Amino acid sequence: MEKVAVLGAGSWGTALAIVLADNGYDVSLWTYRKDQAEEINQTKRNDKYLDVDLPNNITAFHHLDLAVDGAKAIVIVVPTKAIREVCRKLKKYLPPSIPIIHATKGIEPNTLKRVSQLISEEIPNYPEKDVVVLSGPSHAEEVALRHPTTVTAASENQEYGKIAQNLFMNASFRVYTSTDVLGTELGGALKNIIALGAGISDGLGFGDNAKAALITRGLAEITRLGTKLGANPLSFLGLSGVGDLIVTCTSVHSRNWRAGNLIGKGKSLETVLEEMGMVVEGVRTVKAAYQFAKEEQVEMPITEGIYDVLFHKKTPKEVVEQLMKRDKREEMDDLAHLLYKRFSE
Amino acid sequence: MEKVAVLGAGSWGTALAIVLADNGYDVSLWTYRKDQAEEINQTKRNDKYLDVDLPNNITAFHHLDLAVDGAKAIVIVVPTKAIREVCRKLKKYLPPSIPIIHATKGIEPNTLKRVSQLISEEIPNYPEKDVVVLSGPSHAEEVALRHPTTVTAASENQEYGKIAQNLFMNASFRVYTSTDVLGTELGGALKNIIALGAGISDGLGFGDNAKAALITRGLAEITRLGTKLGANPLSFLGLSGVGDLIVTCTSVHSRNWRAGNLIGKGKSLETVLEEMGMVVEGVRTVKAAYQFAKEEQVEMPITEGIYDVLFHKKTPKEVVEQLMKRDKREEMDDLAHLLYKRFSE
Repeated sequence: MEKVAVLGAGSWGTALAIVLADNGYDVSLWTYRKDQAEEINQTKRNDKYLDVDLPNNITAFHHLDLAVDGAKAIVIVVPTKAIREVCRKLKKYLPPSIPIIHATKGIEPNTLKRVSQLISEEIPNYPEKDVVVLSGPSHAEEVALRHPTTVTAASENQEYGKIAQNLFMNASFRVYTSTDVLGTELGGALKNIIALGAGISDGLGFGDNAKAALITRGLAEITRLGTKLGANPLSFLGLSGVGDLIVTCTSVHSRNWRAGNLIGKGKSLETVLEEMGMVVEGVRTVKAAYQFAKEEQVEMPITEGIYDVLFHKKTPKEVVEQLMKRDKREEMDDLAHLLYKRFSE
Repeated sequence: MEKVAVLGAGSWGTALAIVLADNGYDVSLWTYRKDQAEEINQTKRNDKYLDVDLPNNITAFHHLDLAVDGAKAIVIVVPTKAIREVCRKLKKYLPPSIPIIHATKGIEPNTLKRVSQLISEEIPNYPEKDVVVLSGPSHAEEVALRHPTTVTAASENQEYGKIAQNLFMNASFRVYTSTDVLGTELGGALKNIIALGAGISDGLGFGDNAKAALITRGLAEITRLGTKLGANPLSFLGLSGVGDLIVTCTSVHSRNWRAGNLIGKGKSLETVLEEMGMVVEGVRTVKAAYQFAKEEQVEMPITEGIYDVLFHKKTPKEVVEQLMKRDKREEMDDLAHLLYKRFSE
């Protein structure tokens, strides 16, 4: 059996390991925690993260060198903040000429760098164009139950993109390919802003109309920003864009939605972060997008409104009023202009 | 006070009458049922459809001539199947040079005509280009409660589009304009196919991943069909497209979702229609879209799958398997091609 290494044994890493195991690969699942590795190997379960039995062809490791030895592909699924550290270790053991696939959504604070940039920075001989990103609407719990799931594998290196597609694709996990890494990564990160907004709207007691409008207009504005940064606007209309946006904004399991919901109900950001006791990726992404929007002079009224609520003590009600009372406009002028520019060049 | 006539006193017609009344217009709300008109005028409520008190400046009529006399605009909100009959009556009393706005979603069976086409066919001196269509994610109950709602007013006649925008826009009801009547009407009708599919997916017990994938890929295929028929692809990414799609697919109040849900649970179409005891617009739209797709040679695998379930006794499970096992593909090739064609001309 061919071997694939999955680095990161949280819920998403474990779910992806299950998909690979179902496809007949010998999967080594790496975790930095020795006790977790031992528990997985003894019980064939990863109870803290997923409530399913693991296939026999998954073996957990806490030594990175053993995990990646002989692997034909590496899948990185650790949190954004751990990417650099894991890659620094990985570079010592990385087998030559094999694809690195990552499935981590996020942007590094301060540097505003995407995960594929972090990977290639930390692994000097691994060019950014060879990174594959796997993204799309995919709750890990559902993937573990083999419910139908559809994702995008994006890489400028089309051969590596196809390898990723072949590794993961099966009857309940469908993989499309794309060459737009930038758009796929930005979609996965920026959608968390809109999820925060959807939570705020629900927290205010507004209904489905308001949330659908927020998602639609929010999609338009993250598309504008992404395109300005060089992404293909179509990526925002695909699985890693609108698909992921829908699943995040309509699921009460989303951490970003929950944080927004509490803020909409009147709690301060500090209180919410304290109560939740974990990182809310969207809060950092709002800051990053706000900064990008200013630099690139992109109009992002929803992002700005959420920024004002989070960091300038504006009330959500004030921001909604401000959004609803903006000048009368045509719906499509800006997007049309953007697509025209893109496709007429 | 200037007068506006709203024809059709169901939940959506009544909600739009409330918006106009809030904006200071003298609203005449027409219904073909004398008893309903009397009840509305006596109780200032329309209890069968909406649980709110009506503003004093709404008056109900069952005589069409009285309802439209002196109106500066006509808003038609009757079911698709009643459009021709109402317009045949209306043409006798229609004041000259006033805009007709409609807010009815649907396609006429057999002829496959859109509502704006039906209106201009039945009112000979009223050109299709002067019809305004109002569409977007808008549960009537929420509009009646003044929850924030955002819609599109589309007309080739930009002056009339702006009149509609000005009539309806206020602090809780935001109106964007568009010139793409075809795309706005098709989005509103075709989205019901995907809502049926979302219901089927939920009925099968699949999760959010499957539904988000269905919505995303479904959006891509109705965009393909709409664009082939002459619509602007961007309309499908706007409020009357993805916005309405989201609200319909994620709300258990949607009739189409409920029908699909029962079918997903194993009931036959006949049983479902009998149990629900009402028209399920999406079922007729699937037929229409299937026919369009064949004629125009547009690939619509999701629509075809739903058609097979509804009319060819295929099981939903078989169709899902078939969809998941299609050839490996790039995600954006078809849409990119379509947009390239549109914007490079």
